[in-house]
Amino acid sequence: MSDSYWNEEIETMSAKAVERLESERLQTQMEYVYAKSAYFRAQFDKANVKPESFKHRNDLEELPFMEKYEIANSQLEGHLLGINQCASQEDIIRIHATGGTTGRPMRVGWTRRDIADYCEVGSRALWANGCRPTDVVFECMNYNLYAGGVSDHLCFETLGATTIPFGVGNSLRLLEMMNEIQQDISIWATPSYAIRLATLARENGIEPQNIGVRKGFFSGEPGMQVPGYREKIEDSLGLVSFDMYGTGELGMHSGECAHRNNLHYGGTGVVLTEMIDPETTKPIPFEEGVIGEFVYTSLRREACPHLRMRSRDLMQVFVEPCPCGRTDFRFKTLGRSDDMFIVKGVNVFPLGVQATLSSMRPKLNGEFQIILDRPPPIDYAPRIIAEVARDVPKEQYDVLISETMAAIANDLNFSTAVELVEEGSISTEKKSQRLIRDY
Amino acid sequence: MSDSYWNEEIETMSAKAVERLESERLQTQMEYVYAKSAYFRAQFDKANVKPESFKHRNDLEELPFMEKYEIANSQLEGHLLGINQCASQEDIIRIHATGGTTGRPMRVGWTRRDIADYCEVGSRALWANGCRPTDVVFECMNYNLYAGGVSDHLCFETLGATTIPFGVGNSLRLLEMMNEIQQDISIWATPSYAIRLATLARENGIEPQNIGVRKGFFSGEPGMQVPGYREKIEDSLGLVSFDMYGTGELGMHSGECAHRNNLHYGGTGVVLTEMIDPETTKPIPFEEGVIGEFVYTSLRREACPHLRMRSRDLMQVFVEPCPCGRTDFRFKTLGRSDDMFIVKGVNVFPLGVQATLSSMRPKLNGEFQIILDRPPPIDYAPRIIAEVARDVPKEQYDVLISETMAAIANDLNFSTAVELVEEGSISTEKKSQRLIRDY
Repeated sequence: MSDSYWNEEIETMSAKAVERLESERLQTQMEYVYAKSAYFRAQFDKANVKPESFKHRNDLEELPFMEKYEIANSQLEGHLLGINQCASQEDIIRIHATGGTTGRPMRVGWTRRDIADYCEVGSRALWANGCRPTDVVFECMNYNLYAGGVSDHLCFETLGATTIPFGVGNSLRLLEMMNEIQQDISIWATPSYAIRLATLARENGIEPQNIGVRKGFFSGEPGMQVPGYREKIEDSLGLVSFDMYGTGELGMHSGECAHRNNLHYGGTGVVLTEMIDPETTKPIPFEEGVIGEFVYTSLRREACPHLRMRSRDLMQVFVEPCPCGRTDFRFKTLGRSDDMFIVKGVNVFPLGVQATLSSMRPKLNGEFQIILDRPPPIDYAPRIIAEVARDVPKEQYDVLISETMAAIANDLNFSTAVELVEEGSISTEKKSQRLIRDY
Repeated sequence: MSDSYWNEEIETMSAKAVERLESERLQTQMEYVYAKSAYFRAQFDKANVKPESFKHRNDLEELPFMEKYEIANSQLEGHLLGINQCASQEDIIRIHATGGTTGRPMRVGWTRRDIADYCEVGSRALWANGCRPTDVVFECMNYNLYAGGVSDHLCFETLGATTIPFGVGNSLRLLEMMNEIQQDISIWATPSYAIRLATLARENGIEPQNIGVRKGFFSGEPGMQVPGYREKIEDSLGLVSFDMYGTGELGMHSGECAHRNNLHYGGTGVVLTEMIDPETTKPIPFEEGVIGEFVYTSLRREACPHLRMRSRDLMQVFVEPCPCGRTDFRFKTLGRSDDMFIVKGVNVFPLGVQATLSSMRPKLNGEFQIILDRPPPIDYAPRIIAEVARDVPKEQYDVLISETMAAIANDLNFSTAVELVEEGSISTEKKSQRLIRDY
């Protein structure tokens, strides 16, 4: 076994071999869902295709997309798990909730094999992150209902790390326990929790670097690809940070490697990922730097399979080889596809704005909101409200506004109307809303 | 496979066969701990015994007892898991905390095989409880740090039940989700949480019996053996309740069967349980109705083995055959051995007082405290402060006091000085302190 990969065969597979594996599993999965689900059968029949005709990922284009709200709605009508449930309830051993699209949590079920697959792809991603069996990991995600708790915990255990289910809250006790352990430790948390931990340590007279957290595995919030944010976490706690990506429906499946060349796709052979143009829904080929929405199809899922499920997440894809040797594509998250807006023909993502504003630290602190006053087409300069650092005097605001507008125009190629507000003016909810459509 | 047992071979084994199994595993375990741990080696050497001389459970009497505080103290000195750690940290994949004896949480580690054993004995106990793969179980225990979360969750999954990691808090949302699921459900919780759920439902205009919880698996607090308490839970929610028992160090291992003949010991072959007199520490043979303190020795534990670990829990043991066919002993918990006190030669347990006071519902509500004013020997009538129901008029207090003292004298054979207080006077913490030594 190489120390470089969790599953060397899969992670370094040639594109041809991946295609073969996908084709084989796709066929079996299509036959399974057709046999088990009236909903999927109806989709096949409507499209006038048979399960045995799926010989290649391109054949999926015959089928309609699946939307999360279809599942959520069927749960509201009394389904335990929804229209896409294929395994019998007796074979389903775990149910998690995901945020859903309506704010109402949506239930997702898992069989034993589904969970084994979850742990397999999670371990690939964590191994890429540099997590090893010698690590002691404090899991500081919410264990109540969400996959980030029990299921992600078991990925760390599958990999072999010593995993402590700390959960959220009670941060002072966490600091105390971390302090008691006389060896380097790791943390699995949201990036904002790392910031909170550093702040809390400082408030309690503890030098954050002395807590001993040396590796940080982060997920659950965007922002790790924003250089300023990441550096702030690394500097304050004295750790090396790695970004991870997953969703409640699929599990955590992708992570950065030591080269930090964005996220290595880790779902190979378990989840088939297509990319589409969110407006036209036409397929987009995986080429260096292209942007599109990910669409997921399960290749082995028993409990709640997905068949061309729209993620509504916009991604940028990279296919140039990475020095780490992993062969499948890499990607970075650009935000929700419903958050993208077009200013005079230029696609804008709130995460892009965040990156530019973060580059203007310490004068700005990185908090902001984009306000769209009128419906598209957006032929005006959108308002951007940004927080100023406390020590910037009011008389410097005008210059700072000009600098900010210039930076955005330069980096992102569109014009804005920037307004500055004092620190703390924009609510700092866990996931604050970056884009407000005020029309 | 019989539907009556999770592991028919073990659960219906003859006493002779259990002895053989224990002897075999004891020998292997003693050799393992001697090889792996300086602490255990010192214990063996001090007692002048060799690991290969352990041929029978009675041979354990040569060894000294282990106390939890020894482990807790070694953790305070910087040990990750303490003096009894035998596996290397790389082989340990999970760490839980237990309440410890000092109020400070104590860390307990588990290897893969330890966890498999945990799930095995937990499944035996749950199966005895009547839990089945067709059940949908809301796990409403605390997932943060404690074994009642992730580890107990995995017992339900091992058995095959559909398990939802709900956790604690957010009870209104729990009611909402339970209500959405159009089938019978089960709950894994503390008994007091079931009461809280029923109260909350009523406050929100929901008839508690309509929530659909039909099986309740309870642990974490004493009280289920108190008839009034149990019936209150069953009546209000319309469920059948089962008691379970375990500790953070051992996992959950024992549960009632459908005959409710106290707790069937489920640790056979994994944990060896001795019984001792807590005062003299002399062994007590397992005979019908005897009372003593349980002392635990691991038979297969890799990470953190126990060798004659004193539980400080007082138990009453039953060995008459149960109609369910399980052959190992049964027991019920009487409370902490440090909570037992002797009044003029009579052993008194707060749980016994609780049972008598509960039998006086609805005039009393079951809340109480015992106050010992002077150190032993207790040759006086201890004070018992009990809460009176709201609708009992003050002029009836004197009669009620006489009735209560008579009931206690009758049931428990000792004299008390009873005082009545209004409902809500005694703090209702999750685990309120029943015995106060006020000297």
